[in-house]
This record gives sequence, structure tokens and C-alpha cells, in this order.
Amino acid sequence: MQTLESCGHDVVVSDLYEMNFKPVATGEDFTERRFPDALQYDREQKQSSQRRTFTPDIQAEIDKLLACDLLILQFPLWWFSVPAIMKGWIDRVFVNGTVYGAGGMRFDNGGLKGRKAMLAFTTGCFPGMMDADGLLGQRDVILWHLQHGTFGYGGLQVLQPFVGFSIQYTDEAQRHACLDAYEKRLRQIEQEEVMPSHPMSDFDADWRLKPGIVPRTAGHRRTPGQG
Amino acid sequence: MQTLESCGHDVVVSDLYEMNFKPVATGEDFTERRFPDALQYDREQKQSSQRRTFTPDIQAEIDKLLACDLLILQFPLWWFSVPAIMKGWIDRVFVNGTVYGAGGMRFDNGGLKGRKAMLAFTTGCFPGMMDADGLLGQRDVILWHLQHGTFGYGGLQVLQPFVGFSIQYTDEAQRHACLDAYEKRLRQIEQEEVMPSHPMSDFDADWRLKPGIVPRTAGHRRTPGQG
Repeated sequence: MQTLESCGHDVVVSDLYEMNFKPVATGEDFTERRFPDALQYDREQKQSSQRRTFTPDIQAEIDKLLACDLLILQFPLWWFSVPAIMKGWIDRVFVNGTVYGAGGMRFDNGGLKGRKAMLAFTTGCFPGMMDADGLLGQRDVILWHLQHGTFGYGGLQVLQPFVGFSIQYTDEAQRHACLDAYEKRLRQIEQEEVMPSHPMSDFDADWRLKPGIVPRTAGHRRTPGQG
Repeated sequence: MQTLESCGHDVVVSDLYEMNFKPVATGEDFTERRFPDALQYDREQKQSSQRRTFTPDIQAEIDKLLACDLLILQFPLWWFSVPAIMKGWIDRVFVNGTVYGAGGMRFDNGGLKGRKAMLAFTTGCFPGMMDADGLLGQRDVILWHLQHGTFGYGGLQVLQPFVGFSIQYTDEAQRHACLDAYEKRLRQIEQEEVMPSHPMSDFDADWRLKPGIVPRTAGHRRTPGQG
């Protein structure tokens, strides 16, 4: 916060534990229901996007999301992903009808297009464990569901993650060095290149990469014998 | 449940919404604290594994986990992952000192070794979207954090997922066909082969695949120029 504000940015923080943020998606997330008999969560989200009938805790987060130029999710990596409270923030705030939805609103046409996002996390593992041939698997495969499946799907362009490795095995000097590296990145964050992705136009009507398009992400590949 | 019971299995169900399962990891998850001043969640888990001082809701789930031969996580795929309430079940129940931990207790030496697991989920997407060159990315890259990072890490051998594709665009006959296919799989589940994985012995002291080991998962690769 200090670093970004010293660069002239406005910083808005949602501290989910501090907010006692509700992580579980339920029918009570809407102040009116289109289908009261059985919960169809994404369809209720769509209606609530049109009629602004989300509960205030959700609407406040949506408003912050739409107001930002850069979204940073900062967390400890738990089971190769975000903690449950942050997954609940995604489930309840990345809503149908605003972040994605009908009319092909996703990826480079997602509701959050024009904005950027990055993951910033600490983890107990060593850097080599997230190498392509590392024990845990390739870093961007581990993060695929977040970087591609959440950020990318919603239209956000993704910056390289910031990772504080093996954090509980470091001494105070090493932790300061980690913070210094994070500060340095944040000072130049506006100039950073985004990670490669494929626009919707790279895909055919069968939802697969068009012939001749070379896969350029961690999650897209050609199977043997394909173009 | 009907199918598995008709095959002679005992089935224990944890319906997380029905149980109003608490998804958020907090210091109240332990009936005594080793480090009361600042929450070190994994270290408290380790102590609670030794002293059996988890809250009853957690201990009950750990007991079910240790009693099972096959774990099935069944859910709607939300943002390329499990809903928050199920992520919270993983965060709070896959505990340090029981599922993984000191002494190299992970992967083929994980605390749940000897057991199997599978994902069974519904999704709005079409099958081609999860092909290797599909819009959403390769299926097992999408699921890497669950199949490798959670099941595999804890010592579970992983069965191919069961996927109910484009479920909200199907008619009743198609949904019945989906259930029939699931039933057929469950009847033969004990004979199914597990997905390929790498034992710990495939990795060097630097945590990377030993020279000559051919990567055989969705998340391990050789970078150009490597053995």
C-alpha cells in the first residue's frame, strides 16, 4: 500500500478475514429471486447484475472491481490455490452478467477487459519445485485455474505472479529482501508486459485453436498429429 | 449412493451445504493452541494431529477420510475449481501431520497412501473446450491443483474424473444418460487404472525430475535443452 500510494495510485484493500467475508454462495446473496424454488446461482447473478439486487457486501466488491486498473490477489498458497475465503470472494463477486456472460462476454471480451491482475503469494516450497520438471509441477500449470480460468476468463490481462518462496524457512534479512523485490516490482508495474494469452478469435467454432495457431500458454497444447 | 451400496460398499456422505460446514480456517479450529500469539495454521495442525485437539467438525471429517478406500469429491465446477465451501473442507481437513508433513510424508509417501480419489463434477462447458487445444485449456491442467496438488500430494492415487458436460443445456434424456454413464463407471470403479504420476524417487535432490525420466503428467515437462 505504501509503495503504490507513493507512486500516486489510489489503493483500495479488501481484507477478507478482517471483513469476516462470507465465502459460501447461497440464495441469500440476492435481495430478490427470479427462481425462488431451486437455486440457480449463475442465473440469479445475471438477473442481479441487471437489476442491481445483490446483497450490499457483494455489490461493494463488484464496485471495487469495476473501479480498479489493477487487481492484486495476495494470499498464502494453500493446496495449490487460494484459501477458501478468497475462493468465496471469486465465487460471489465474479458474477455472471458483469464479469462474464451472454453474448460472448469472456476472455478478451470479458467484463473486466482493459484491466490487469496479478497473483502475489507466499508458499512453503522452493523455486525448483515449481519448475517445469519440478516436484509440484510447472508454476503456470499450478496457477492455471486462477490466471487463465478466473483472471483471463473475466477479461483481465495477467501479469507474472509475485512469489515469496519457502517463506517459513527464511530469516528476517531474507524476508526483507523479498519485500524489497516486491516493492521494486510494484514501482514499475505499469510498464510490465502481460503474460501471453489467446484471443477468442484464435479459436474455431469447435472451440479449439485454429490450424496454424501456435499454443503460447501453459494450458494449451497440440496433441500429436494436429496442426 | 444407491449404486455403490448395491455393489456392497459402505458409503459415507458429507453434504457440506447441508452440514453448514465452516469453510474458513481460523484459530478456533483447535481446542488448544501451541502458538497463541500469532496463528501458524499448519503448525497448529501438526500439533493437533499428535494430540487430537481439532474441533469435532474437523476430527469427524479426518476420521471419515482415514476410513475410506475411495474419496469422491462431487461438485459443480466453479471458476475452474471446487466451490469455496469445498475448498474450505480441503484447507481444514487435509491437515499437516496426518495427510502430509515432516519426514517426507507426501505424494507416494503421503498420509492417505493406499487410497484412491476422483473428481465428479458438472460444468457448463462443452467437451472440446477442455481438449488440449480447447478454449479453457487441457482438462488435466485445469484440474492440476486438485488432482496433483491435493489428491496426489496427500498420497491418494487418482482416477480419471467423471464430467457432466454442458449440463444446463441438456434435456432430461441427456441428463439420464449422464447418470447412467456415472452408474456404469461406479460399478467398475475398483477395476479402473489410476492416472499416471511420478513417485518421489523420480526426483533429484534439487526437486526436479532425474535425467532420463520421461514426464508423464499434464504438469511436468522438460524445458528445451534438458534431459
